[in-house]
Amino acid sequence: MGLRPWYFKRNNKIKTKKLKIALCQLKVSADKSKNLLKASEMISCSALQGASMVILPEMFNCPYNNNYFRDYAEEYPGETTVMLSRLSKKHSVYIIGGSIPEKEKGLIFNTSFCFNNDGVLLGRHRKIHLFDVNIEGGVSFRESDTITAGKNITVIDTGFFKAGVAICYDMRFPELIRKMSLSGAEIIIVPAAFNMTTGPAHWHLISRVRALDNQVYFIAVSPARDEFSDYGYIAYGHSLAVDPWGKIIAEAGAGEELVIAEIDFGFVEKIRRELPLLKHMRQDLY
Amino acid sequence: MGLRPWYFKRNNKIKTKKLKIALCQLKVSADKSKNLLKASEMISCSALQGASMVILPEMFNCPYNNNYFRDYAEEYPGETTVMLSRLSKKHSVYIIGGSIPEKEKGLIFNTSFCFNNDGVLLGRHRKIHLFDVNIEGGVSFRESDTITAGKNITVIDTGFFKAGVAICYDMRFPELIRKMSLSGAEIIIVPAAFNMTTGPAHWHLISRVRALDNQVYFIAVSPARDEFSDYGYIAYGHSLAVDPWGKIIAEAGAGEELVIAEIDFGFVEKIRRELPLLKHMRQDLY
Repeated sequence: MGLRPWYFKRNNKIKTKKLKIALCQLKVSADKSKNLLKASEMISCSALQGASMVILPEMFNCPYNNNYFRDYAEEYPGETTVMLSRLSKKHSVYIIGGSIPEKEKGLIFNTSFCFNNDGVLLGRHRKIHLFDVNIEGGVSFRESDTITAGKNITVIDTGFFKAGVAICYDMRFPELIRKMSLSGAEIIIVPAAFNMTTGPAHWHLISRVRALDNQVYFIAVSPARDEFSDYGYIAYGHSLAVDPWGKIIAEAGAGEELVIAEIDFGFVEKIRRELPLLKHMRQDLY
Repeated sequence: MGLRPWYFKRNNKIKTKKLKIALCQLKVSADKSKNLLKASEMISCSALQGASMVILPEMFNCPYNNNYFRDYAEEYPGETTVMLSRLSKKHSVYIIGGSIPEKEKGLIFNTSFCFNNDGVLLGRHRKIHLFDVNIEGGVSFRESDTITAGKNITVIDTGFFKAGVAICYDMRFPELIRKMSLSGAEIIIVPAAFNMTTGPAHWHLISRVRALDNQVYFIAVSPARDEFSDYGYIAYGHSLAVDPWGKIIAEAGAGEELVIAEIDFGFVEKIRRELPLLKHMRQDLY
């Protein structure tokens, strides 16, 4: 399909600097090949709808449950990453590959593999903050029982713009998102699987304020909600895109859904000019 | 009136660690003595309702407008601060004195004076981040035309708990609130005057997420909205208190109003135990 119009527009410094991004809220089952097929279909559908970048949810090929991570884990390159690379080239789309359990030297990571529109790996983010919580009357989970934490902050450079990539619980830490923004990221992308305790309480709130504080687009992509999931963890859904003013510009419901969000880099510039938060930071004090 | 029951409870390590705080959403006029009288009445009413701490809004003795700050400014001690000190002792309440224009060596600061329940100055916060914005179709203001920025982060120690004090635009900077929390603040107090552009868009959002991210109580106190104000800046109102889960527990409407919020230090401990965000921070990475 070749490069999409916005690339040329951005290069030629024409004022319209827009980009379509697809949020693939797919339903994750315990059947890995079914998950991969669904991801593949959603990627192809995203390209047909004009998206230049496609985002999958956290653990899109594997149930979000400690009992599954090790069995479903792949070394890189593996079945899932080879497929993502091939599809990114085939459809000429950037792919932020949600996350999958990644195996390396016996350790398991919760990793997002990111490909450019020519099938080349641009970066990989290993979830930094592990979800170890125990909320009375709500969710209880110890991700660190199986997963090893990553050690690096990930900002990928598409050549046209920079994007920060984080995974789920990572988004609760403002320092991380700030650091990405100060590195030049204008979009923050977060494959995530909030649950039925933290989702209704915090999902929109955190997404909106990270966008607002850093004057970036903030995009969080969840698996679809499956009340009848047989692996015990029910994702919240509500994949969303928030603009730099903190306004939700696209949002899925709870079920399986493909949402297209339009990103406008001109709006990032406008908001940063009118309310210059990043310039007003007092880095001498903190 | 002497110390209120919660002090003893906290000292004796009884499980209930509660405290009433009063949010005084008073209407600010161009008549300084009227403003002081109104503040005095609200403080006395707060004490009668059992509050141990009373919070006034930003620029409670002076219109929020560059044309007024210099004329209304006082050196410390001055008319307003002497009154606050006297009232804190008289009613045995802690007073976070909103803010007033403070004069020192020819410079003007936007300053919050904080008194303990015996009339002693516990700390003073000079607004660090000045409100210089120009939003298309919305608010335009250059606070730095008259005000000089403060240089210090302010955490006061009541002897029973610590509280961070910031002013309005300061609350847009997550690093500041984080630093206060890591210094031991369990309550963040922000006299503030958001306006009819930024108020509806961001007031609740920012207040809720600062509380949630830092697992503290976050209390923001605004002047009442005055659509007919003769000095051109219309405050948003909606003074509020948010608990460490990000939930609004008390909120005023737009008009003049006194709101009492109940703070429970036991809840801070519970939330920090169940969802240990501060412990999960990766300070090695940011």
